[in-house]
Amino acid sequence: MAAEIVNSGSDLDDGVDASIDPAFALHRGGKMAVRATVPVRNADDLSLAYTPGVAKVCSAIAEQPELVHDYTWKSQTVAVVTDGSAVLGLGDIGPEASLPVMEGKAILFKQFGGVDAVPIALDCRGIDEIVDTVARLAPSFGGINLEDISAPRCFEIERRLQERVDIPVFHDDQHGTAVVTLAALRNAARLRGVALGELRAVVSGSGAAGVAIARILVEAGIGDVTVCDRRGVVSTGRADLTDVKREVAGFTNRAGLSGSLGDALAGADVFIGVSGGTVPEAAVARMAKGAFVFAMANPTPEIHPDVARRYASVVATGRSDYPNQINNVLAFPGIFAGALQVRAARITEGMKLAAAEALAAVVADELSEECVIPSPFDERVAPAVTAAVAAAARAEGVARR
Amino acid sequence: MAAEIVNSGSDLDDGVDASIDPAFALHRGGKMAVRATVPVRNADDLSLAYTPGVAKVCSAIAEQPELVHDYTWKSQTVAVVTDGSAVLGLGDIGPEASLPVMEGKAILFKQFGGVDAVPIALDCRGIDEIVDTVARLAPSFGGINLEDISAPRCFEIERRLQERVDIPVFHDDQHGTAVVTLAALRNAARLRGVALGELRAVVSGSGAAGVAIARILVEAGIGDVTVCDRRGVVSTGRADLTDVKREVAGFTNRAGLSGSLGDALAGADVFIGVSGGTVPEAAVARMAKGAFVFAMANPTPEIHPDVARRYASVVATGRSDYPNQINNVLAFPGIFAGALQVRAARITEGMKLAAAEALAAVVADELSEECVIPSPFDERVAPAVTAAVAAAARAEGVARR
Repeated sequence: MAAEIVNSGSDLDDGVDASIDPAFALHRGGKMAVRATVPVRNADDLSLAYTPGVAKVCSAIAEQPELVHDYTWKSQTVAVVTDGSAVLGLGDIGPEASLPVMEGKAILFKQFGGVDAVPIALDCRGIDEIVDTVARLAPSFGGINLEDISAPRCFEIERRLQERVDIPVFHDDQHGTAVVTLAALRNAARLRGVALGELRAVVSGSGAAGVAIARILVEAGIGDVTVCDRRGVVSTGRADLTDVKREVAGFTNRAGLSGSLGDALAGADVFIGVSGGTVPEAAVARMAKGAFVFAMANPTPEIHPDVARRYASVVATGRSDYPNQINNVLAFPGIFAGALQVRAARITEGMKLAAAEALAAVVADELSEECVIPSPFDERVAPAVTAAVAAAARAEGVARR
Repeated sequence: MAAEIVNSGSDLDDGVDASIDPAFALHRGGKMAVRATVPVRNADDLSLAYTPGVAKVCSAIAEQPELVHDYTWKSQTVAVVTDGSAVLGLGDIGPEASLPVMEGKAILFKQFGGVDAVPIALDCRGIDEIVDTVARLAPSFGGINLEDISAPRCFEIERRLQERVDIPVFHDDQHGTAVVTLAALRNAARLRGVALGELRAVVSGSGAAGVAIARILVEAGIGDVTVCDRRGVVSTGRADLTDVKREVAGFTNRAGLSGSLGDALAGADVFIGVSGGTVPEAAVARMAKGAFVFAMANPTPEIHPDVARRYASVVATGRSDYPNQINNVLAFPGIFAGALQVRAARITEGMKLAAAEALAAVVADELSEECVIPSPFDERVAPAVTAAVAAAARAEGVARR
């Protein structure tokens, strides 16, 4: 809170003068609304959209439950669910303060994927409570996008929730980031003419994004991936690991590295930063020739992209003002649109891999060191991801239409 | 489920041919959508509506929690919550099958009150579960409209939920119906030149609507009201009463009546039917001269309005094809709009009484036996109710702005 919060003496009664900051001005009154998609002008309209006409539709769904997908907005609607425990880089700011992010996410769903989304900020923190609550909401929605829930709780919440409900549950901070990262890495490798299997990657950060990135890279066939947390390499030899990190140690670090992030980076082909920390120039300088540096911490990348570029052949960040922005909006709208289109029961690893491939393919013919990933505003992205995810859902047997 | 569900052989894959029933055709794909109210066309837009701009707004709310009302859609948004246990006249059809009604309600909120509303159909039935779940959702919404939850559970759910949250909780099947009924009764009494205190009313039905109507009539100063359930007059002498009915017996039936509905109706001035049952013509014939008959069961009134009219000076029903339709849409949009406008912490009895007075006043200058209540499409209604409810909230000290 800095200059933007002042006692304005204006007609606003809340001590904030929206006129001095365009973000506050834009947020006044919120960023979204609902609208009727059918007419409600007169008694005839009401008798179809509401009683008595609606009763026939209700009865039909009661007899054939799958009709809910045809005759309500369920199958085009996603709940964007948070507990406000890990919001952006702001941390644990609680449910109310997280709402502007959830609304933002909801309008991105609509704008980029044509998916209706509803912000749901929960006033509870226990894993059991969150799982129970969201499971009880499931009849109203076609999918659940978990957002900004702190690690390691987010892993168990997602897993248990998906076991309970028959609609997709997707923690975007994990999988959205992982999908876009993999897409960028695919194109960087393509550009340099190397196979993923030839690359050794180091992921700095073992929270939601780091764990999911490690997982998807292994699934995609990367040569090796090593994850580092604040204490260094996450390896099976460490006694201080959480359950999730122990699992990560089990499927990563085939080279058996130990030591610091700097140690791991020596000779590595790929750096992926999702830690919010920093990485010294000297460590990047010790990476393999032609390395890729994805310094995705926001707003301050782990290493300045101009500095990284002295050593790396491809540099990506989370920022819109540098080339190669790793932006989740490239993934989640299309992933949910594709899953909803075929009424997928869940989002499988294969669907995520397909999303990454489709996303990478969008710019396959225009690859350069400054273009390994499309712009968030590239209109080819969402249709490509949607189609790939829907096809993968069918191939994997989780589609229901 | 009758003729409208056939295997159509058309391009629909669900066995329902929407073309043969306009209600199904209208419901295809649902009846509502969300929309962004701010632009999301380019990187500049995104940097205000999402990261990094949104972070400032989140931080401001974290420091000054009341700003959530200014900078999100919370204070214009109501959750329409059901468990699907008492849907229309269909009964316990479950959450999915109730969704078309909740969507219908949501679009009525928007159309008539300018209030954004989100259908939330819960997959749980226990009172504790429902209260816990909805309380956890409260940060996201400015109000909770409970809908189609069976009695007597609805009474305890509403009471306990309102104790837990600082936003209005309003069970429309109770209070919406009660407000509109009182408004119609006020105008009927005005038309006949009698005071409410001179009238003795009989309410047939002791579910959500019946109990709330009895309560508001007593608060409004009716001479006496007697509630009847299937076994007859709800009186303190009965040993078979639920907690709620025992409470009703305590504040109604000052005349100490007992016996059947027919017994209670002898000489009564007002009949209010919310039972779904029937009342014989002979019983209506024994009412006081110039009686009012509000036969509100839907779609089949307790007595045919043309028959009732032979004895009653004013007849009202729940139907749009007869005069004097008692329709909740006359109340709930304005009640919530008014409560949200002043950020009321709850909806008090005084706010409900004010809503009824304002609603009645809309047609005070055009009263006739066929017009004791405005049409649902009378555009004067929502603004009048909104203003009256907001003013009453201020007067009662529950307004927060």
